[in-house]
Amino acid sequence: MSVSTGPDPVPALLERLATVCVERGLRVATAESCTGGLIGHLITGIPGASTWYLGGVVAYANEVKAGLLGVPGSLFVEHGAVSEPVARAMAEGVRSALGVDLGVSVTGIAGPGGATPAKPVGLTWVAVAGRAGTEARRSVGPGGRDENKRAAAIAALELLIQVAEAA
Amino acid sequence: MSVSTGPDPVPALLERLATVCVERGLRVATAESCTGGLIGHLITGIPGASTWYLGGVVAYANEVKAGLLGVPGSLFVEHGAVSEPVARAMAEGVRSALGVDLGVSVTGIAGPGGATPAKPVGLTWVAVAGRAGTEARRSVGPGGRDENKRAAAIAALELLIQVAEAA
Repeated sequence: MSVSTGPDPVPALLERLATVCVERGLRVATAESCTGGLIGHLITGIPGASTWYLGGVVAYANEVKAGLLGVPGSLFVEHGAVSEPVARAMAEGVRSALGVDLGVSVTGIAGPGGATPAKPVGLTWVAVAGRAGTEARRSVGPGGRDENKRAAAIAALELLIQVAEAA
Repeated sequence: MSVSTGPDPVPALLERLATVCVERGLRVATAESCTGGLIGHLITGIPGASTWYLGGVVAYANEVKAGLLGVPGSLFVEHGAVSEPVARAMAEGVRSALGVDLGVSVTGIAGPGGATPAKPVGLTWVAVAGRAGTEARRSVGPGGRDENKRAAAIAALELLIQVAEAA
């Protein structure tokens, strides 16, 4: 199901993000689970992104979240991979691994499988780790796999911009 | 400039890739430079990709290629980041870092900047590292940034399928 929600917000978000990163000299890295690389793909669609975007980790499997991002295995057991603590640990892990100012993460259930009674398809946690600490936000996507991935990427970009502009 | 080239080949490529990976029990990881996460995004558009796709590294900056993928710094000096040796080292590095059967990499010049007399905008090297060794292939994309990223992703998927089907 495709939900019409007006103009695509992504181009304006990317422009705002590029502006604040260039103006403030902020370097950014991504840690993506359910979006699978979409955020990095969107960011690298901007010519010149290489001056502030270093790259990141596509941590689709939990072993990658643990191995490359240092997410403690106990968090998966206690909270599940789609949870605020895991999103926070992913953002902090990629910030540390790549030595950047801001690490942004996303973990969610894109669907159609993977839902539980407590966690619906579309549930997403995004987090941004910076010098002043880590912010996290919960959202629920519109339902289809593609739409959920895109909604999760937008939520991540929005939180990243908010933290960058407040930095 | 958008070049019409008939039907989009990506859905059929993804279906072939998923089929061979499931049938042969192959696990895959990605190491992306100029595509910035697009290959991971395309792969994770397939429901069930989590059974064979673990994730990877978006190695946009050379320091990420070196730090997370173990690409020797001498290769950048001797051959440049967009070169066959760097593509090979990225594929081998992500295969090793994530412990998968097949590591696929891409490094290229998406444009509009970054070209040199010897390396035009659109130049791409893709590589696939597997148990039997590493295959690499050179291609030149159609010119625009978005089209070059997509052409590079397609070249990577094609080589990945070829190696997987021969495994």
